[in-house]
Parts: sequence; C-alpha cells; structure tokens
Amino acid sequence: MYSVCVRDHFMIAHSLNGETFGPAQQLHGATYVVDVEFRRLQLDPDGLVVDIGLASNALREVLAPLNYRNLDAAPEFEGRNTTTEFLAKVVFDRIAVSIRTGRLGSSATGLASLCVTLHESHLAWASFEAELSDR
Amino acid sequence: MYSVCVRDHFMIAHSLNGETFGPAQQLHGATYVVDVEFRRLQLDPDGLVVDIGLASNALREVLAPLNYRNLDAAPEFEGRNTTTEFLAKVVFDRIAVSIRTGRLGSSATGLASLCVTLHESHLAWASFEAELSDR
Amino acid sequence: MYSVCVRDHFMIAHSLNGETFGPAQQLHGATYVVDVEFRRLQLDPDGLVVDIGLASNALREVLAPLNYRNLDAAPEFEGRNTTTEFLAKVVFDRIAVSIRTGRLGSSATGLASLCVTLHESHLAWASFEAELSDR
Amino acid sequence: MYSVCVRDHFMIAHSLNGETFGPAQQLHGATYVVDVEFRRLQLDPDGLVVDIGLASNALREVLAPLNYRNLDAAPEFEGRNTTTEFLAKVVFDRIAVSIRTGRLGSSATGLASLCVTLHESHLAWASFEAELSDR
Amino acid sequence: MYSVCVRDHFMIAHSLNGETFGPAQQLHGATYVVDVEFRRLQLDPDGLVVDIGLASNALREVLAPLNYRNLDAAPEFEGRNTTTEFLAKVVFDRIAVSIRTGRLGSSATGLASLCVTLHESHLAWASFEAELSDR
Amino acid sequence: MYSVCVRDHFMIAHSLNGETFGPAQQLHGATYVVDVEFRRLQLDPDGLVVDIGLASNALREVLAPLNYRNLDAAPEFEGRNTTTEFLAKVVFDRIAVSIRTGRLGSSATGLASLCVTLHESHLAWASFEAELSDR
Repeated sequence: MYSVCVRDHFMIAHSLNGETFGPAQQLHGATYVVDVEFRRLQLDPDGLVVDIGLASNALREVLAPLNYRNLDAAPEFEGRNTTTEFLAKVVFDRIAVSIRTGRLGSSATGLASLCVTLHESHLAWASFEAELSDR
Repeated sequence: MYSVCVRDHFMIAHSLNGETFGPAQQLHGATYVVDVEFRRLQLDPDGLVVDIGLASNALREVLAPLNYRNLDAAPEFEGRNTTTEFLAKVVFDRIAVSIRTGRLGSSATGLASLCVTLHESHLAWASFEAELSDR
Repeated sequence: MYSVCVRDHFMIAHSLNGETFGPAQQLHGATYVVDVEFRRLQLDPDGLVVDIGLASNALREVLAPLNYRNLDAAPEFEGRNTTTEFLAKVVFDRIAVSIRTGRLGSSATGLASLCVTLHESHLAWASFEAELSDR
Repeated sequence: MYSVCVRDHFMIAHSLNGETFGPAQQLHGATYVVDVEFRRLQLDPDGLVVDIGLASNALREVLAPLNYRNLDAAPEFEGRNTTTEFLAKVVFDRIAVSIRTGRLGSSATGLASLCVTLHESHLAWASFEAELSDR
Repeated sequence: MYSVCVRDHFMIAHSLNGETFGPAQQLHGATYVVDVEFRRLQLDPDGLVVDIGLASNALREVLAPLNYRNLDAAPEFEGRNTTTEFLAKVVFDRIAVSIRTGRLGSSATGLASLCVTLHESHLAWASFEAELSDR
Repeated sequence: MYSVCVRDHFMIAHSLNGETFGPAQQLHGATYVVDVEFRRLQLDPDGLVVDIGLASNALREVLAPLNYRNLDAAPEFEGRNTTTEFLAKVVFDRIAVSIRTGRLGSSATGLASLCVTLHESHLAWASFEAELSDR
C-alpha cells in the first residue's frame, strides 16, 4: 500500500456539552493541525498516489469554511459535540466529496482509503480512517 | 475507525543482556515518550473515542510505578530484557487493565484496539498494538 | 549563561479587532503550546537553573485561569487585542510574579531573565523575553 | 503486532516529468527524512523486533548510493518519475533485500512487514508498506 | 523584546565546491524549512510585532524565485557556495528588502532585528541574524 | 551573526542528590537529544560557519564516553549532581576543547560562541551558552 500525506491547520472556537468535559464546557478554542493521508494500491501513470498540489488545495478549500469560526454557531453542527474525533470525521467526509467531484484530479478515483488526523496540542490528537468504499 | 492518542513520558535506568546489545549491556537509561492510541468503530454518546482527561490520568497512573526506576531491580522484569518493544507491551497490558477496571469510564468498554508507542530518541521508537479481544 | 525550559499548553477563544486581522476578527480560538525558558549565570547549590518540578507547577498555575476561556469576556483584557505576542507578555509577567512570590523556590531569586514562547500552529509562534530587572 | 522504527535521511537532485508537476518539472532537489518501521508478531529471544544497531546500519547502507545524487542521471531510474512515493518503494525493496541477505541478523527472518516513510518537508510525506511475503 | 516567527519551505538542487564538501561536491539537493523571526521592542498599535499574514506572504514571495531551482545555474550565486548558512543570509537580505519596500505594512518599520533559520534535515540547521540597522 | 547547529543523542543512568529532586533521587536515567550551535560573525572561505561533517564527528566523539554510562559511577562527576543543565556545560567544555585541538578544522578558530542544548523529554530541556573567549 502506498500513501501520501499533506498537512494544514485551522483555528476555531467551540464549547462541549456534558459533564464529561469539565472546564471544556465553557466557550474556548483550538488550533487543529490536520494531516490527511491518501492511500492506494498502485501508483498512477505519473508515479503518484495523488497530486500533492491538488491535495493541498483541496484540503485548504475543505478547511476554509471551518477556519476562524465559532463552531457553536455553525448550523451544520447544531446539537453535536464538535470533539476532535468528530471533526476528523467531518474533514474526512468533505475530502471524500472533493475526491468524488474531481477536485483531486481524475486519477484520484483510484484511491483506496483516507486517514484524517487532527492534532489539538503537543499531547493529544484524534483520527478517522476508512475505505473510500463508494468510489 | 476512530482513534484518540495521548502522550506522556517516563525516565528509567536499565541494562540489556546479550552480546547483541553491545555497549547497552552496561547500566544506562532512557527517556521514553509514550503515545497511547485508543481506537473504536463508533463514537460514544458524548461524541468521544475516550475521555482524554481520564485517558491522560490512566496513562500517568500506569507510568508512575515505572518512572524514576532502575528496571534491573524491578522484580516483575527479572530475567527479561526491558527493550523498548517489550516495555511498549508492558504499558499496553497495564492500560488494558485500566480499561477493564473502569479507570477510563464506562463507555471505554467500546474500545476496539490500542497502540502503544515508546520513543527512545529522535531516531528510534517501538510500538505494540493489538485488539482488546477480551473486552 | 544557563537556561532551562518547560512546556505546557492552554486553549482559548477570542477575536481580534482591526482590519489588519481579516477573518480573525470573527470569534475563533487557538491552542497555545507554551515554552518558558529560565536563565541564570551560575547554577544554584543543587546544580540547577530552577527546580523543573516547581517551574512546571508554576506554569500550570499561571495558565489555569487562561485555559478554557473566551478571552473576549475576560475583564483584564478589555480593550486589548489578545494577539499571540501580547499573550506571551501576559504569561511572562505572571511567571515573573510567581518567581518574586517564591513559587519557584528561594534560589529562583538568582534568575537573570525569561523568554516565553507561544506556538499557535506548526507554522507560527511568538515570544516575549526580558531581564528580570526588578527582582 | 510489535514494531520498531529507525530514522535517517538523504539529499538528492531530480526533476519530474509531466504537466502535473508544474514547476517541479525543473531540476530541483529534496531532503528526505526516512523512517523504516519493522514489524513482527512475536519478539525474538533477545526481546527484540530487530537489532536497532543493525537496522540503522542497514538503512545507512541502503541510502548511501542514493545520497548526494542527481537521480535524473541514475541509470536504474531511467524513464521513471522519482516521486516521493516511488522512492519509498525503492527504499522498501532494498531494505527487504538487506533482510533476506542477513544484514539485519538471523532473527530478522521473523519480520512480518515493513513500512517506509519519506518526509519531504514539514508539510508532506509518503509511505510504502507491505508484507515481507517471500521471506 | 517581542518576536514573531513564521515558517515556509523551498526545494533546490545544487553542488558545493571544495574538498571540504566531500560527496556534497556532486549535484544533489535539499528541502529547506525556513523560519523567519521578526523582533521589536514594542508592539504596534494593533498589538502586533508584524502582521503574520503579510509576513507569510512576504516569505512566500521571497522563496518563490529560489524554489524548484538548480542554484548552480542561478547567475546571482555564480562563484559562490550556496551553503545553508549562506542561503540563510540570502533570505535575510531579501526579507529586509521586503520590509523596507513596505511589503510587511507600514508598522514594520519598527522592527529591530531578524533571524532566519534554514533546516536542512532533522539533524542540522543554520541561521543568520542581525539588526535591521539601516531601516 | 551566523550559526550552524547539529544534533545527536546519548543515553545514561544517574541519580540526583537533594530533597529538591524528590523521586529523581532514585537511580533512573534519560535520553538526552543534544543540539550544538556554533556561531561566528563571518563565514570562512568555503562559505561555512563550520564543516558540518567535522562538527557531527566531533559531537559523536564527545558523547561517546558519556553514552551508555551510569554517571553515578563516573569519577569525573563525583560529588556533583549531573543535572541536565550541568551536563549541557560538560558537553560545551568538551566541544570547546575539540575546537581548540583542531578536531573541527583550522577555520573553526574563527568561531565566536557556542550554545549546547540537552532535551530530556518533549516537555523540558536545558542549555549552556558562552563565548569562546580563549580562542
């Protein structure tokens, strides 16, 4: 299996609901450094897993509507806890859409799976990974 | 698959038996920076893989009896080489006990697998990963 | 010159006032990974710049009232832009108070200067450094 | 599953063919920081996945003929794009040969799989991983 | 003293002249991860050392004509060894020009000094720092 | 001012004397990742601060007699606490000798100062820096 990973980041405010979260129930925020790993079994004709330039652009586009936001005010997350692991899945789903809609180029249809990791500090991070089953 | 990872460290003295180890047969030591990755297929009702606060506390509790120790004098490791990979398994087993005994909360029973990584320098690290099969 | 540095972090929400800040004028947030470097010309009788345990505790105490906060609602920052460089100075001033009030032990009176760095992402950080002139 | 990872690096010049590569079609270069992860199901009699000293030496030997080279002039890569993911496979294949020819010691025959990662910057990296099926 | 640092990178081919350089006399290449630290005694009216957005843009502009180049073919470096420390000075001088010509905004005239660091691997880096004396 | 920095590491056992040290009074150990920064005002005729190859070799030679040692049994440290900051000074002094005795080449006589940093974990490090006054 081959993989390629690109990194970017976004900065948000949010609060988390439930006693489990202790002081994180207050409005606070985070910088998320995001790694998206693209995987495929064979390289494409250019010798690539994915075009890193297109992958970086797609990641920036996916993060732009999240960046500099208060997620508590985002209608699409209403009633949800925007935990790091939940947001990893959000980024995963949006990158998967970018692939299906051709933003990563035609050969990206050969991608087998993705893993999205959000680093919330030097001490903690979360991931979501899955096959791109409906490609 | 979702995952969450937390980091901590411990500092020990030890020596390693066998010609393979060359100068590491002498009494020396190491700082191990420890990453514990918790994995599960579905998030719990709070939107979590595991409560990061409880996970960090559990890791600190697991590392405390190892920290600031000479492992050559630890009865539980008598006759064993406390290599980095061996210690990764030790930490794995103790975190697995923490999960079973409820130290990570009731929803931690939904965890599927763990991966424990010990970084011994900027150039080398070792891991043990397995399913939490008897959960 | 000797120095010792300890690391911790805090997570906040805030917004920044002024056209310069573009989208960062919206309510968003950040994880700040904080490094505090303590400097002195001679080691103390224990062979230390500062007791790392006390220094780490002092840093945690200084960050606690900032952590999990919306800085826009903090009376002490009213009318101020809580930029990364501004917050580096805030942490500096509070650590300097910790030193003067003995939280870092009696030998910490021998400290010559401090440098506080706040990392806001993998791409940007800010510092404030100064002598501890009025110690 | 146990794993051990060692790190080294090499520095090369190359150019990449195809419109996809934009300005990277020009002769340029890269530092590749290389991580090789060795995996096995059971530790060997010394308590090891692999002898880190032998593994580090084997990696240095594998990278030596690539280091300080213009890959465009390397006969073995003629007609191929030496992308990061392609080079990860090249390093994988050569480490696999090192294992088969005994450079990592006799117990290395128990290795199950390898993962080779090449970091090309702080923002992008690529891997190749596979079982050591013909061992 | 306050400082703000931003990070970017560029990838080049080159060779180095002189027996001192051993195998680096051959055409090879490097990824340089670049940190530019801007320093000033007082924050500007917005509470800033420098506008991070403008600083990042200025750094990208400075690196663009170096990126994806064979420095051996660059007329401006003819007869010079493009060592890491030499290139740190090149980037320093060009950022200094960006400041003087207003690319970092009008308040950047208050900057006191710069430090430019080029990381060539996980094991080695070089810097050039100086006051912005002729500002 | 120009600088060049090289990185290596060593692994030791030791204990620390004095109530201040709490559990670190027990025999334990550490991995120290060592950065040595060499500084000079002008580059040498090759365009260098120092030959990185010679500097890396000199650092390895300086660390070899410390590596894989129990520092409590080292006669040269008898009666001293081998704290991280103390060891930073030890490495500094030995590198300074390497410079004076020509191990870093003849142009190394132009070096102005050194800074040696020992990282003991991902959370703490210590440095010693000084001019090379008797050069």
